[in-house]
Amino acid sequence: MTTCGMDTADFRRRGKEMVDYIADYLENIEQRDVYPDVQPGYLRSLIPNKAPEEPDAYEDVIRDIERVIMPGVTHWHSPYFYAYFPTASSYPSMLADMLCTGIGCIGFSWAASPACTELETVMLDWLGKMLHLPDDFLAEATGQGGGVIQSTASEATLVALLAARSRIVRKIQEDDPDRQELDIISRLVAYSSDQAHSSVERAGLIAGVRMKKVPADKTFAVRGETFSAMLKEDKEAGLIPFYFCATLGTTPSCAFDCITELGPICNAENMWMHIDAAYAGSAFICPEFRPLLNGVEFADSFNFNPHKWLLVNFDCSAMWVKKRADIIGAFKMDPLYLKHDHQESGLVTDYRHWQIPLGRRFRSLKMWFVFRLYGLKGLQAYIRKHVGLAKEFERRVREDQRFEISADVVLGLVCFRLKGSDETNKTLLKRINEARKIHLVPCQLAGSFVLRFAICARTTESRHIQEAWSHISEIASKVLQDLPN
Amino acid sequence: MTTCGMDTADFRRRGKEMVDYIADYLENIEQRDVYPDVQPGYLRSLIPNKAPEEPDAYEDVIRDIERVIMPGVTHWHSPYFYAYFPTASSYPSMLADMLCTGIGCIGFSWAASPACTELETVMLDWLGKMLHLPDDFLAEATGQGGGVIQSTASEATLVALLAARSRIVRKIQEDDPDRQELDIISRLVAYSSDQAHSSVERAGLIAGVRMKKVPADKTFAVRGETFSAMLKEDKEAGLIPFYFCATLGTTPSCAFDCITELGPICNAENMWMHIDAAYAGSAFICPEFRPLLNGVEFADSFNFNPHKWLLVNFDCSAMWVKKRADIIGAFKMDPLYLKHDHQESGLVTDYRHWQIPLGRRFRSLKMWFVFRLYGLKGLQAYIRKHVGLAKEFERRVREDQRFEISADVVLGLVCFRLKGSDETNKTLLKRINEARKIHLVPCQLAGSFVLRFAICARTTESRHIQEAWSHISEIASKVLQDLPN
Repeated sequence: MTTCGMDTADFRRRGKEMVDYIADYLENIEQRDVYPDVQPGYLRSLIPNKAPEEPDAYEDVIRDIERVIMPGVTHWHSPYFYAYFPTASSYPSMLADMLCTGIGCIGFSWAASPACTELETVMLDWLGKMLHLPDDFLAEATGQGGGVIQSTASEATLVALLAARSRIVRKIQEDDPDRQELDIISRLVAYSSDQAHSSVERAGLIAGVRMKKVPADKTFAVRGETFSAMLKEDKEAGLIPFYFCATLGTTPSCAFDCITELGPICNAENMWMHIDAAYAGSAFICPEFRPLLNGVEFADSFNFNPHKWLLVNFDCSAMWVKKRADIIGAFKMDPLYLKHDHQESGLVTDYRHWQIPLGRRFRSLKMWFVFRLYGLKGLQAYIRKHVGLAKEFERRVREDQRFEISADVVLGLVCFRLKGSDETNKTLLKRINEARKIHLVPCQLAGSFVLRFAICARTTESRHIQEAWSHISEIASKVLQDLPN
Repeated sequence: MTTCGMDTADFRRRGKEMVDYIADYLENIEQRDVYPDVQPGYLRSLIPNKAPEEPDAYEDVIRDIERVIMPGVTHWHSPYFYAYFPTASSYPSMLADMLCTGIGCIGFSWAASPACTELETVMLDWLGKMLHLPDDFLAEATGQGGGVIQSTASEATLVALLAARSRIVRKIQEDDPDRQELDIISRLVAYSSDQAHSSVERAGLIAGVRMKKVPADKTFAVRGETFSAMLKEDKEAGLIPFYFCATLGTTPSCAFDCITELGPICNAENMWMHIDAAYAGSAFICPEFRPLLNGVEFADSFNFNPHKWLLVNFDCSAMWVKKRADIIGAFKMDPLYLKHDHQESGLVTDYRHWQIPLGRRFRSLKMWFVFRLYGLKGLQAYIRKHVGLAKEFERRVREDQRFEISADVVLGLVCFRLKGSDETNKTLLKRINEARKIHLVPCQLAGSFVLRFAICARTTESRHIQEAWSHISEIASKVLQDLPN
């Protein structure tokens, strides 16, 4: 008995049509407006207000992709998309994702699908070696570390924070068994840069701990001296500093906290240092960018998103910890649990203890396909190409006396603005986005309104950068013309 | 310049081959052992210990699926898989998932891809109507509710708990502005059934609040009287009850907490009632099972997993709230944030405020394809078929005097055991799983070791149930024979 018109033979046919639809979409994506021209609520009126009783025809569903969905899509993989940070997309990753869906196993424990757990552990080792992470972070080493795929960097930040909270509570109670957990928690204080992503502050709210922002310097990086001074003050006020989330590649300007200074301070203070390199991390596979990661040896945990810049489709956020027991212990603190903890030191890994959700997809297949079908050299070439395109855009901006560069261009992000008022720059951005040819988003840097130009799509080439710059330059001319004298 | 050997033409070819591989896999899945015969650590030795410098040949990668991956896969979609609860898989969902990956947008805000947000809102309305949820929970209504896709039920439980924590703190501080947040939190107490999933207790650990287990009755359901007595005692001890997570369809035995009794209590006490119907929720689309959801009108939030039993591939956990502002307010409590909150009452939804992670896939496409290509009647037929198969298995067990049924069979789960010792039943389960023909997991019910038989695969038919029962029955005979007299 079948309850749906679609059998395996139909799937073979429709699946192949879908492959062609996706190939056509990506091949011709430049011809679509990168940013959609719809008003909030546009979609509801285009489709029925309830599910059909009887199945719809497949042809109708497919027709509705262009009628209902595409008009409302922001095309992240268009070479004219320069907003936010990239989200990765590659053919090897898409193929692996199909396989992942086809197998459809849930990997919450080793037994639930051993291959799902084991490939993940080994892929995180492969990737860790590409980054030249210290051996402490690898599972194959004799140490106590290892890696895991989280869904997003926000979750990695939270998991690290919960692990740190649990570790400090345990440590204080070891010395002072009568001290109440909530009393300890009420004195805890976590830190991040004032340039850090809002998800770091959000992690603090979720975990119910005080979160303070350390002021960054003129290059938007946190320095050791500022941090030390804050710690001293907070300790004198009776607080317990326990966690620092360093950012390598901040969202506004891709700035790098000075972890070679901050790491030793965290270590000396017995604080957990987590490194969030969500965007920038992918670049560390290139020897010339690896020095940006120097200081990782001081960290307790490190995270970046291959799903941003390493050609692995969302979601795939790679996280490593130096001590597996720390992260597993974050969610359980009672003695009973230690039995499971013990298992973890052996060969069996139950990744459900490493993350917030219970269920998990077989995401390491995507890493496996991408790493093998690009090879390390292919991945490095991809990173270098993007950085080269950013430098090319930067040169254009610098050549135009009307503009200024607002932050060092280290990787694939260029922060720039018209010399002049925020108002003028807001008008510029508004007109750029309204034209829908390219798409950018702004940021705030040192109190000024700044435009962010991030190299995003896999298929962005020099000609797109030239086009984008001509387009921006033209709109800027009009904006400046329209200014009251 | 391309950095990978695979261009769009290659993707067309390899994508179609992958469609066939997946179709072949699912068509012939019965011929594979459902549970893998590998030892922990099996995979590492089968592949290199680092990524290749140069790209591997595609043929080698594909060959390795059978060589490296498949030997370690637990085949969740085999009709011989009866472990845990089902994870959904259907061809319409797989096609939609391919499209989701192809579009590859990230839907953290409306603007990041309006179609992604808007289709989700409407699909949650469609699904809410299939379940006959009160209008309060729908976004299209004039009320303040709406739905969102979470990754897993664990995350929905946590999000609801955080929303409840934030709501109670706000409420108490309104009356008593000097009262410290941590003082309030130190007195909070949340509740769930002692049959509830471990992720509920875990949510309490993450949120840093006390979590108590309410003893279930003989049918494994929490009743109002027990709950009231606990609340009274806790309030007398100075605690502040604020959250109850009711379970409809518990993991051990698919029992149903009595929400028509518990709901009014929660409402009277100003407690947040969250309903976790992760597995059972899908059944409520059938009128004959909808009464199991009676009492949902008292809830603040409701969640179930279409990715379990409604043919939508993982991940897709549907969550509704009566007041959008409650859930959004969970992560921000400062006045500045209220400005954003205000936006939420309008047409623009930014789903990043509804969830733990920041990024999100275009998952509503899967719901859209499945709902349209099955139609409500097709989905209902699917649920009824599974329940029918469970009843068929139950009859077999009841006909065999050596066995007993351990809990009411309401939906697709049968809990059963050999009359006799736990030891005998443990041996039975061990031998069943070692034979690798079918796969089951156990549970603990009323202090006894019990076997769980859950109808899982889409393609399970009566003949598989008959085979499974013959197989179990045969092994049982041997186990009983081997018992010392």
